[in-house]
Amino acid sequence: MKRGIRLCITGSEIMNGFVLDRNTQFFASELYGRGYRLVESRIVHDDRHQILATWREWAASGDIIINSGGLGPTSDDLTVDLLCEWLGDQAIYEPEAERRTRYFFERRARKNPALSLETALRQARIPSRAIAIQNSVGLAPGIFIPEKNFFALPGFPEEIHAMWPQVLQHIQALEPEKFLTTIIPVWGVGESQLFSGIRETPGVTVGVHALPWGCRLFLRAENGMPQALEKLAAEIRSRYSAQIVEDPLVEVIAHCKKQGLKLAFAESCTGGLAAKRLTDHPGVSAIFQGGVVGYANSAKSTLLGVSQELLATHGAVSREVAEAMARGAAEVLSAELALSFTGIAGPDGGSESKPVGTVYIGLYDRRSDDMRVARFHFPLGRERFRNATVSCAFLALWQYLCGHNTQDVFPLSEFR
Amino acid sequence: MKRGIRLCITGSEIMNGFVLDRNTQFFASELYGRGYRLVESRIVHDDRHQILATWREWAASGDIIINSGGLGPTSDDLTVDLLCEWLGDQAIYEPEAERRTRYFFERRARKNPALSLETALRQARIPSRAIAIQNSVGLAPGIFIPEKNFFALPGFPEEIHAMWPQVLQHIQALEPEKFLTTIIPVWGVGESQLFSGIRETPGVTVGVHALPWGCRLFLRAENGMPQALEKLAAEIRSRYSAQIVEDPLVEVIAHCKKQGLKLAFAESCTGGLAAKRLTDHPGVSAIFQGGVVGYANSAKSTLLGVSQELLATHGAVSREVAEAMARGAAEVLSAELALSFTGIAGPDGGSESKPVGTVYIGLYDRRSDDMRVARFHFPLGRERFRNATVSCAFLALWQYLCGHNTQDVFPLSEFR
Repeated sequence: MKRGIRLCITGSEIMNGFVLDRNTQFFASELYGRGYRLVESRIVHDDRHQILATWREWAASGDIIINSGGLGPTSDDLTVDLLCEWLGDQAIYEPEAERRTRYFFERRARKNPALSLETALRQARIPSRAIAIQNSVGLAPGIFIPEKNFFALPGFPEEIHAMWPQVLQHIQALEPEKFLTTIIPVWGVGESQLFSGIRETPGVTVGVHALPWGCRLFLRAENGMPQALEKLAAEIRSRYSAQIVEDPLVEVIAHCKKQGLKLAFAESCTGGLAAKRLTDHPGVSAIFQGGVVGYANSAKSTLLGVSQELLATHGAVSREVAEAMARGAAEVLSAELALSFTGIAGPDGGSESKPVGTVYIGLYDRRSDDMRVARFHFPLGRERFRNATVSCAFLALWQYLCGHNTQDVFPLSEFR
Repeated sequence: MKRGIRLCITGSEIMNGFVLDRNTQFFASELYGRGYRLVESRIVHDDRHQILATWREWAASGDIIINSGGLGPTSDDLTVDLLCEWLGDQAIYEPEAERRTRYFFERRARKNPALSLETALRQARIPSRAIAIQNSVGLAPGIFIPEKNFFALPGFPEEIHAMWPQVLQHIQALEPEKFLTTIIPVWGVGESQLFSGIRETPGVTVGVHALPWGCRLFLRAENGMPQALEKLAAEIRSRYSAQIVEDPLVEVIAHCKKQGLKLAFAESCTGGLAAKRLTDHPGVSAIFQGGVVGYANSAKSTLLGVSQELLATHGAVSREVAEAMARGAAEVLSAELALSFTGIAGPDGGSESKPVGTVYIGLYDRRSDDMRVARFHFPLGRERFRNATVSCAFLALWQYLCGHNTQDVFPLSEFR
């Protein structure tokens, strides 16, 4: 069998449950998306015997090894010493890392009497036969040992992400087993609905990674023949053209910045999640006026001008109230575009006609007085309900701004 | 060495990067918190050779094995068949699981023509020599094989959590190595500050798990002698008495429900996160009136009544505006208690006197017209800044409601 890839994640902080290992998923998804075969991920303590035993066992297979963690300056950072022991090599200072470490030490670490220059420089070391992988985020360089198909990377996700393109180049040169793979993010459709519309295709396996509301599809040609894969991918792309986008919210932000449009939100059941998701992105103060979390009915009236009569007649979870909330938010916050959310997140509060998971989403364009509301049912539990609701609204807003305004488009076609 | 514990996490969906493995951290933190020693966590594909080889290798060590995944009804659910192969045993239907599977099949699965009763019953099987672990959440029972110190659990976190108390009882009876361990959650203090106040104690190791703003301390007696551990724990408890609580927000919710108090939020830099965090908890409509996300200055004026003059004189990030926001939120939303947040989340927008990470938090009690504001500096990056800010406010509110109102209490003593 051709060469696979194995992960060794070192860190007692993970093994003691203090830190969630997110690196396995990062590597796994990156490798799978590029068609590579991940064989195993092994999480171990910062323990010299355990780590060396793992490397030695794996090296016999010829597989590529990626080790993560243990490159810092402290005494439980063992990777470089263990590598030298394994290779019968000596550690040297990597020139660029040494220069940067000395520079930082002069300016900062001096103030920390617990850290000596000698200790700080521990993280600038690599085995003499290693190729360094530059680290633009931290001080410790990554390490590539060609004779062992071996990579050592830090444990911090940001540093791994920054080094990853260099690692991928080396991996490619080692020619591991590789399957042709295509990734298609499809928003606004559930897994089972999506699968029922995908033709079973011999030689192509279909994997799926959940989006907050939708699926990222991974198509993989198992027999190395691209034709069947490309035909299936083209079918899916044509069928879901208006739902395929990396992240609708990112597109909405870019569009509003470019056009000078302002957004406002009126949230009930989502309780601030839409505003939170938007303000996760830096620099949105240019387009985000603000939002109202009108959890109580009185707040909907006072802050958004939703009339008590409307609330009494139709109930807070209704098309009419969603309309009034969106209109109120756009007006009171002087925004061109407004989204509103009113529904039943559960676990309590449902009824026969409006069960838990029911939500009305309003989309209002003050420029044209265009008002749309859609009703959805996401009976997925409180957290997934709220994520799906907000993602659904961002998708519809993106489609609206793109002019994807035809009957066959989902979910915007649901908004009437 | 006495018996440790090893985890085998099976699932191609994890190895392909579609699903983040959260089970390793659940097991690791549960085991560490109870003083057990986790040796390794190995993540592998749903692959019969890889799984069997792992079990066989580990069984030789005498360690306890916990396998997660592979107990469902489909053909890639291999655990029971592999166990029978390994043990030279035969699968039988576990009576309770068989009864429940038949019942569910009659009522539901019949509508799904792809699922036969025979297939559904695959998940009711266990090896004849196994002890079943009841599954109150799903259909597949867990499995305990005493002769191999072996547990098989499903992959779904909710099912694992439901079975965990039964598993712990069996683990205890197997008498693995066990260290005396005490867990203390301390809010409102950073890791380095906390450590500088902890006396180094021979025989006691101190581990730390980050809270959104604070640390969960794990004290572990390495030599089996409880006295040193208990003395250190008592010192820490006495020093930080007003900051030790499992979750301040949960306490705030309980207090407000009991006393019939209503909350309101006025958020700028936190962008809805405070409202989102509160409404993550079901049933808060009884105490949460709503919130205003006043991202733009005009929104602060229109919705919260913060005067343009005040904004122009002091700037949006100021003690005066934090006060006006809290007062405005309490009044416009008819709430007894209000929290306000105004600061600079970054990465841009900082200045010499108000660098990125600066935040003013306001706490207002309308009943007594008691107004407090504190300034903090959390230069932690956008996401951690926002989490720390909101957690800090919930901690202060909890201390305020408890009457922890003395000078030596942090952070409430910061609020003047």
